[in-house]
Amino acid sequence: MRVPSGEHTKQNGVDVGNERRGGDERIPVGVVGTGGMGGMHAYCLHRKVAGARVAAVSDVDADRVGKVAEECGGAAVFGDAVEMIRDGGVEAVVIASPDPTHAELVHECLRLGKPVLCEKPLATSPEEALGIVEAEVEAGRKLVQVGFMRRYDPQHVDVKNVAASGAIGEPVLFKGWHRNARIPAGVDSGWVVINAAIHDLDSARWMLDAEVREVFVRGLNTTGSSVGELDLQLIQLTFADGRLATIEVNVDAGFGYEVGVEVVGASGTAYTAPPSGATVRLDRGFTQKVDGDWLDRFEPAYTIELQEWVRSIESGGPPSPDAWDGYASLVVAGACIASIRSGKPEAVPVPERPGLYAGEATGVTR
Amino acid sequence: MRVPSGEHTKQNGVDVGNERRGGDERIPVGVVGTGGMGGMHAYCLHRKVAGARVAAVSDVDADRVGKVAEECGGAAVFGDAVEMIRDGGVEAVVIASPDPTHAELVHECLRLGKPVLCEKPLATSPEEALGIVEAEVEAGRKLVQVGFMRRYDPQHVDVKNVAASGAIGEPVLFKGWHRNARIPAGVDSGWVVINAAIHDLDSARWMLDAEVREVFVRGLNTTGSSVGELDLQLIQLTFADGRLATIEVNVDAGFGYEVGVEVVGASGTAYTAPPSGATVRLDRGFTQKVDGDWLDRFEPAYTIELQEWVRSIESGGPPSPDAWDGYASLVVAGACIASIRSGKPEAVPVPERPGLYAGEATGVTR
Amino acid sequence: MRVPSGEHTKQNGVDVGNERRGGDERIPVGVVGTGGMGGMHAYCLHRKVAGARVAAVSDVDADRVGKVAEECGGAAVFGDAVEMIRDGGVEAVVIASPDPTHAELVHECLRLGKPVLCEKPLATSPEEALGIVEAEVEAGRKLVQVGFMRRYDPQHVDVKNVAASGAIGEPVLFKGWHRNARIPAGVDSGWVVINAAIHDLDSARWMLDAEVREVFVRGLNTTGSSVGELDLQLIQLTFADGRLATIEVNVDAGFGYEVGVEVVGASGTAYTAPPSGATVRLDRGFTQKVDGDWLDRFEPAYTIELQEWVRSIESGGPPSPDAWDGYASLVVAGACIASIRSGKPEAVPVPERPGLYAGEATGVTR
Amino acid sequence: MRVPSGEHTKQNGVDVGNERRGGDERIPVGVVGTGGMGGMHAYCLHRKVAGARVAAVSDVDADRVGKVAEECGGAAVFGDAVEMIRDGGVEAVVIASPDPTHAELVHECLRLGKPVLCEKPLATSPEEALGIVEAEVEAGRKLVQVGFMRRYDPQHVDVKNVAASGAIGEPVLFKGWHRNARIPAGVDSGWVVINAAIHDLDSARWMLDAEVREVFVRGLNTTGSSVGELDLQLIQLTFADGRLATIEVNVDAGFGYEVGVEVVGASGTAYTAPPSGATVRLDRGFTQKVDGDWLDRFEPAYTIELQEWVRSIESGGPPSPDAWDGYASLVVAGACIASIRSGKPEAVPVPERPGLYAGEATGVTR
Repeated sequence: MRVPSGEHTKQNGVDVGNERRGGDERIPVGVVGTGGMGGMHAYCLHRKVAGARVAAVSDVDADRVGKVAEECGGAAVFGDAVEMIRDGGVEAVVIASPDPTHAELVHECLRLGKPVLCEKPLATSPEEALGIVEAEVEAGRKLVQVGFMRRYDPQHVDVKNVAASGAIGEPVLFKGWHRNARIPAGVDSGWVVINAAIHDLDSARWMLDAEVREVFVRGLNTTGSSVGELDLQLIQLTFADGRLATIEVNVDAGFGYEVGVEVVGASGTAYTAPPSGATVRLDRGFTQKVDGDWLDRFEPAYTIELQEWVRSIESGGPPSPDAWDGYASLVVAGACIASIRSGKPEAVPVPERPGLYAGEATGVTR
Repeated sequence: MRVPSGEHTKQNGVDVGNERRGGDERIPVGVVGTGGMGGMHAYCLHRKVAGARVAAVSDVDADRVGKVAEECGGAAVFGDAVEMIRDGGVEAVVIASPDPTHAELVHECLRLGKPVLCEKPLATSPEEALGIVEAEVEAGRKLVQVGFMRRYDPQHVDVKNVAASGAIGEPVLFKGWHRNARIPAGVDSGWVVINAAIHDLDSARWMLDAEVREVFVRGLNTTGSSVGELDLQLIQLTFADGRLATIEVNVDAGFGYEVGVEVVGASGTAYTAPPSGATVRLDRGFTQKVDGDWLDRFEPAYTIELQEWVRSIESGGPPSPDAWDGYASLVVAGACIASIRSGKPEAVPVPERPGLYAGEATGVTR
Repeated sequence: MRVPSGEHTKQNGVDVGNERRGGDERIPVGVVGTGGMGGMHAYCLHRKVAGARVAAVSDVDADRVGKVAEECGGAAVFGDAVEMIRDGGVEAVVIASPDPTHAELVHECLRLGKPVLCEKPLATSPEEALGIVEAEVEAGRKLVQVGFMRRYDPQHVDVKNVAASGAIGEPVLFKGWHRNARIPAGVDSGWVVINAAIHDLDSARWMLDAEVREVFVRGLNTTGSSVGELDLQLIQLTFADGRLATIEVNVDAGFGYEVGVEVVGASGTAYTAPPSGATVRLDRGFTQKVDGDWLDRFEPAYTIELQEWVRSIESGGPPSPDAWDGYASLVVAGACIASIRSGKPEAVPVPERPGLYAGEATGVTR
Repeated sequence: MRVPSGEHTKQNGVDVGNERRGGDERIPVGVVGTGGMGGMHAYCLHRKVAGARVAAVSDVDADRVGKVAEECGGAAVFGDAVEMIRDGGVEAVVIASPDPTHAELVHECLRLGKPVLCEKPLATSPEEALGIVEAEVEAGRKLVQVGFMRRYDPQHVDVKNVAASGAIGEPVLFKGWHRNARIPAGVDSGWVVINAAIHDLDSARWMLDAEVREVFVRGLNTTGSSVGELDLQLIQLTFADGRLATIEVNVDAGFGYEVGVEVVGASGTAYTAPPSGATVRLDRGFTQKVDGDWLDRFEPAYTIELQEWVRSIESGGPPSPDAWDGYASLVVAGACIASIRSGKPEAVPVPERPGLYAGEATGVTR
């Protein structure tokens, strides 16, 4: 049921027709969730993506969704995500609602044949993600893109390109670091893996273009909380062909937000440079500012991710990263959680990749 | 007269109606010139700017203009710029045609009351630019933005923000460097000032928020050509209040394209960091790639420049940098050319700033 | 027996009296081994260390030792290291001969009560190193310094100082990388641990000021040799108090020689900056030169190591890093080799630290 | 007359014999002046230079000179510099007393035929410096080295080597920046030129290996003092062959001490990298520490300068930079002061270089 448009919205769900408006060839997109992440997607779509427009937004928080709708030039407002996805005026969907809702909403999009960009993680368990892979395989068509936005970050893409070019020889080792300023209250070690490390697990797979065979995780509680959850995790990966990765996931790093990768090849290495903000000489130091969070750091990546997603819909090209990437990263994440519990290296049981995904690399070099 | 649409265009000028199409609220823009610079503007408008669309393009080169029109989703094609500017389907104009055409085309836009983004230089002489300022003053309204895109480059904006914040004390010295890989054949010392140094003269004015009082230029021919034109120019500026600037303009630097600025304040300095592409360790070196030209280096700046220009049209806000900036930079450029000829410091005769521009800073801090 | 002085020496063993010469208060040092490493020590002692002089050098290679003796202003020449150590004209000893000779020569110095700076590794096994620790404990006096020169490298010292100052909070994670251009022919995985990784194991102990409890090593042969030895090793350490380390040892990195460390604290991190050689803009890149090997990279560190060693002899202060550091690093190295063989994490059996070493930190903050 | 050795000295002037002591072949050096600069020289000679020893020190401040003598292992103490220079136990001299004393003390050394390292400036006027050049020419022998220590700074040497190698093409432009944290009270514009800018004028001559033909200086008082002296000076140089330089001399920069140079060649550039201290991520920033003053920044350079000076005495090689460099830099400095007064570009009257200096480059590439 459509919610009545509140005082903050100029236009309600009724305005979303089942055909594109007049001569406007832009793809009408519906955005599920209008929190920090969903708000960022809606803002970028409205302001920085040329071939699409925000046709509708949905959220259970009427106040929040109304504000975002207004900022996007009067998008239709829905309280129920499924209803919005089914609306004829919505042709493609961005999912940025809480993690437990992802899988079911993606299935709804698949049933309707609507392209969907789903925030990470694709699901809350490998099994749930496998269900999405199987649904796509059955339909014989890839409609799902997973929100691993680092694959569109110019710095990451630069490193991937160097690695893939052969310039530094065969890539043999991936090194990742991922630091958040502060951990949210009440999260546990598994949350750190599923919500934070999942990005790094995908990066490692993408950069080395291979699947993981073994994981070993050691962690530490650096906050002094009595709970003992591991906000610092040191993850060591071995790939199917013996190549290696080491990842620092550090969700209470204190100083700010920072993400970096280095790919070590047989004859050289390539790594992301520090952010290129102004350097300031002051008070006996040379200082470059560090970003506060991922929305600051990856704003250009989110924009390019959406631009490329819209372009792939226009052109009918396959989305990337795809549901298989969403699934495989969750399988590795599951093994990481097992290793935290067992205190030992754990094997990673990745099944055979279906033919639908076989022709695609795990990553996109742009 | 409209040119017939060639084989490269799906749509010709006839399709440009005098009203916005259907429900499409995007501003229809006409782009004059489809060479490297105009093509870049059209591409960015079409792909990366949400509130506008490329409605028409004009060029005397029918082949080139046709291709750009097609890439922009079938824009209308014109052989004559004035005809396109006058077309009812064009509500705002980007001018990227050869320098000698700028002033007259801007005047045409002013006569029609259409907002215009004109590439630098605004005109080919200070006198011609003053005519535009006077036309705006007479109309009592600012419609002209000048394409000093560095004012929208995130690195430059960062430095400007630090300088304007007071963090480094009063800014007392501007240092700029501007290096092109190769000089085009056949250009002279004046061309280097008017086409290349003009950006740096604007940067200095913007960063220090003041007008120049004196210039002193020494130069060198580094290419060994017998002509003796100065491809390397070292420009020293004194501002009205005694503050200083030094600028290296080096249009045959050989190694690649690089632009940087440093603002020295009374208690610290701020400068643009090197580009943040991947760092590669290879062959006994750590290397970061340098851009090849300004289209590579400033692509994000051109995009933001257009996004902000469109937003200012939507909101009715004043354009920035404005015609006064275009004029004042040409006055300084003229004094630089005089200094090259005389071999001495030369005074810069900047007239009183009209009230229309008085309330505006020379730059925009975003 | 002393070898006769060859044509390359101006002065032979006979000249080494059992008292310091005339009014020369400099400590007469004997250097064992005149290969690359011993030659570097002799050169630095002769040219850059003010309170000592090279009184004698020994090597089985008469030609090589003669040249070094001559370059050091005519030092006495010995073919037999023990004979030189016992000579009355030698008051302190530097050992830079092949690894298997280290322990026995150190014991000889201890028996004579002569201070000794021994290159790493202190011995070829933990058991052999323990014998040295026990000999010092029995003598009740520390005479042995181990050649972990990174503890005197200004960049490493800077990081240690920041970590120890508390500025970045409690240090919780050590990250090290150690890259050689090329691996020598014929070495095996154990050699990589004992000769290369040993430096990093000491760095980790020093930076975190703690002993290691568990190691896990995964490796890779990147050279395509059929032997299968691991020239790339990824070492994960857990310390007694749960803190962590990850080390990349990469002895066939191809591009050059590079060593770096980062200490991650609870609220910030500190890391060694890249070498500060000239940055060159050329050929579409900004490049900094990478060192070719450790003699290039750590020349200043070797000099300071010797200066501080001589100063500690003059002042009677304890040497650092000491025999315990030499021993403990070998215990960790042994566990690393065990982990390579077992494919599993291995516990590290470090015994109780004797009282002689108890009062000393594992590292020196300067 | 020798001062009696105070309580701070173990040994007085009487101990300085007129022959080297016993078998000690080290060169006995006398240091004039024991303030910050002289104390640094004495310390480096005593601790870090192998072929020399501090035989004597002189200063009118008995307390200060006594302390330095004691720290240097009991050097002889003199209250009168000339008496010390004449002492038979002193074979080479370092002059670090106040500027007005330099020329006369250097003449004393020349009369005695003793090698002398004189701090910059060599004299207080070009005329006075010319007297030293003429005295050397008459003696037919170069004994004077001037303390332009940057010529021994590894970072500067790296840049010089790249420039001289031809790798970046013909050097065409020198850029220097020189920033002190705070200006001493009571100094005037001329002092800034003679004491601070003199280093940069020498750097420019050295890097471009040429003499200056014209200077133009504009300056600013950034401290708000009513005196109006120019603590910020922007110096533009033209060389005899038309090549260029720009120098920022900024003696009240506030944030710390920093010196850098860039040489722009016809096909590339080379510049000194920032200091390579630990980088610290903390409080939303990446920060590298800036040095506090020249003694911090150039300590390695001072050490190498002394090592090379001692080596040149041992080998009989010519000192570098020499008296001509000391003289020529003062001629340029004089023209800078004239330009400050006239507000115009000023010609630089450098006379013909005498044959004694003709065979030497203006700089040393090491």
